[in-house]
Amino acid sequence: MLLPHPPGTAPDLSDAAAGSAGDPPGKLSDLTDRLDRLQAALGAEEKRSVLIVLQGRDACGKDGTVRRVFGNLNPAYCVVTSFKRPTPLELRHDYLWRAHQAVPPRGTIGIFNRSHYEDVLAVRIHNLQPEAVWRQRYQHINQFEQMLTDEGVIIRKFFLHISREEQRRRLEDRLADPAKNWKFQPGDLAERALWDDFTAAYQEVLQRCSTAHAPWFIVPADRNKSRDHAVAEQVVQTLEAMNPQYPAADPAVLAFRGKIL
Amino acid sequence: MLLPHPPGTAPDLSDAAAGSAGDPPGKLSDLTDRLDRLQAALGAEEKRSVLIVLQGRDACGKDGTVRRVFGNLNPAYCVVTSFKRPTPLELRHDYLWRAHQAVPPRGTIGIFNRSHYEDVLAVRIHNLQPEAVWRQRYQHINQFEQMLTDEGVIIRKFFLHISREEQRRRLEDRLADPAKNWKFQPGDLAERALWDDFTAAYQEVLQRCSTAHAPWFIVPADRNKSRDHAVAEQVVQTLEAMNPQYPAADPAVLAFRGKIL
Repeated sequence: MLLPHPPGTAPDLSDAAAGSAGDPPGKLSDLTDRLDRLQAALGAEEKRSVLIVLQGRDACGKDGTVRRVFGNLNPAYCVVTSFKRPTPLELRHDYLWRAHQAVPPRGTIGIFNRSHYEDVLAVRIHNLQPEAVWRQRYQHINQFEQMLTDEGVIIRKFFLHISREEQRRRLEDRLADPAKNWKFQPGDLAERALWDDFTAAYQEVLQRCSTAHAPWFIVPADRNKSRDHAVAEQVVQTLEAMNPQYPAADPAVLAFRGKIL
Repeated sequence: MLLPHPPGTAPDLSDAAAGSAGDPPGKLSDLTDRLDRLQAALGAEEKRSVLIVLQGRDACGKDGTVRRVFGNLNPAYCVVTSFKRPTPLELRHDYLWRAHQAVPPRGTIGIFNRSHYEDVLAVRIHNLQPEAVWRQRYQHINQFEQMLTDEGVIIRKFFLHISREEQRRRLEDRLADPAKNWKFQPGDLAERALWDDFTAAYQEVLQRCSTAHAPWFIVPADRNKSRDHAVAEQVVQTLEAMNPQYPAADPAVLAFRGKIL
């Protein structure tokens, strides 16, 4: 079972921390079935929403997690947003602008595949902004997520943590697979060469932006099954703690019970 | 000349403070011409934007200010957003969601006719949210505006302050004018009966949310000419202090000078 990363502490992002011992304790489909029922109540209640943030290095399994953990939910109440390279219009706005637009409305579960955290990760590594600019963003982000929380958005953030060797294996698999290698970017390997820089950037994100209201979870992600199970279990727990309720029926409607002609 | 309302202090919103002595010192068109030139440079520079917030009671002149102060600007670089009663979708989001979407991108001037401040004004007066909810919004708003400032949005907020008697006169004029009375809402009079409640709510906004980075200005608004001049003058000063610059031409382009066949 995942625990929130303790606020203000440096995380262990060693290769060893990416592994997991043995198979997960139960079937993923049991968890996704529970999630499905909880989501239906969340949508009916329409008072709160859930924002799931997925971050991690290339090939860590963000897309797979989306598909296997959230793929069976009612799409009317579940929206996935992939944050890619910003468009020219997005670049003309503050970096939280596009993230804010995609925040799930009450009654829904929103999944960010990458997120506003790229603005203290990729932006930092590739020197797209001066340090003075990206460094003040930790505080912006914490305050933004606090405001969302105050307004009814429950936020859970997952760092899918893979080891360097596992990434190598997966990138090799991609290159060998005609269904995948067409979308391979040479830049993917350039990013890999910056492994230690990304480790440092992720460590600082986890240290500064895991908060009581919007915790980060570090998910050992070298094994897909364990990774999916850990994320699903945490999301189910989150929704069970929220305990969403169907609204009461209108008494005027109930008065028709047994009297419908 | 307007001065920023000093942070943390209670403002004088008496009827007397709504009046102004004599005519404005210059022609409005001189100011709007300067504004037009400054805006062209701001649009060419495309590094920063300006957000103007207009708030005030019914009939205080928000629409007139938009038309007369900003009406001659190049609409490609000037966007007015009127915040009306929130739509069902907007109500399913946090209250800053719709405001954030409308924040002007770099290179433009954005005018908010009403704004996210309604969420600590109308929402407070009409008990649309419990006090515990709207009270924490002062801090959200200050933090939101700080983030925008850090990211290159220059914010100036204007409270158009009219007296009770002047509002009465203007509402009577509206009722008597067939070009205006069709859009008169009975609710407009109900709001007027809550005059003192709105005064208290505006006082708290001005006290808590006039900040060094995003100041509020109290504009005596019983006389339209003085009101327009005061707002225009302050906006021109803001843009002059920003001193937007046209980008340098590409030397490869300049090399063609005198050589174009």
